[in-house]
Amino acid sequence: MTTKSVCSVNHIDHVGVAVKDIDEALKFFQEVFGAPAAEIQSLPDQGVRATLIEVGQTRLELLEPLSDDSPVGRFIERRGEGLHHLALNVSGLAGNLKKLEEHGVGLVDREPREGLSGMIAFLHPRSTFGVLTELVEN
Amino acid sequence: MTTKSVCSVNHIDHVGVAVKDIDEALKFFQEVFGAPAAEIQSLPDQGVRATLIEVGQTRLELLEPLSDDSPVGRFIERRGEGLHHLALNVSGLAGNLKKLEEHGVGLVDREPREGLSGMIAFLHPRSTFGVLTELVEN
Repeated sequence: MTTKSVCSVNHIDHVGVAVKDIDEALKFFQEVFGAPAAEIQSLPDQGVRATLIEVGQTRLELLEPLSDDSPVGRFIERRGEGLHHLALNVSGLAGNLKKLEEHGVGLVDREPREGLSGMIAFLHPRSTFGVLTELVEN
Repeated sequence: MTTKSVCSVNHIDHVGVAVKDIDEALKFFQEVFGAPAAEIQSLPDQGVRATLIEVGQTRLELLEPLSDDSPVGRFIERRGEGLHHLALNVSGLAGNLKKLEEHGVGLVDREPREGLSGMIAFLHPRSTFGVLTELVEN
């Protein structure tokens, strides 16, 4: 990682996958791919039930919408189940958000908020080649 | 990772992103997120120009279609730029493909073939919650 970049990334924190039935999906990843036990948490303010599967440095996050009109519910309605977002691990999230905005990167969240992985903020996919990008500081 | 699973996964090998202009996308990831130098390779048999950005254990793969009627070209036509596939690192790819097929998982590739990351094979997204899943042995 160079030091001249706008926002230095430590590593890919996790990959988010939108699913209709998180219990079924977690069971599949355990039985088929040997994923370890993982706790499913309800996050009403984000409109999801979610779990982080520890499978190395980069984790797999499963997201099940709590309702059809939640962001993840609308995503599944529009595009079906599948890859939802990419989360990059950074240090100094609040300062990096300011620098990214100054650089012209569109932000969904202007301030860090609490997420399953620590403090998080989403960038707008129009600024990141269609990839809904989450920054995570944990 | 449990030993009873059908196919034990070592870690997430890389995340593939479909982009229209790989030079522009790579420059963005370098300038904005500090991605290191990466070589762009042309893979005519897969219909893409591709590069693997080393950003920790899990890498970021950028894919630019060589033509509109290639698989990645059709993906962008249909869904726009964005997250394309998830690659899981495994040992013993050929044997694992057999076991996955016996377990009822749909395969795109029944035999390993050469890819940018080593020997690869794709699973069908209908078997993996809408996620186009690649297995990689390197």
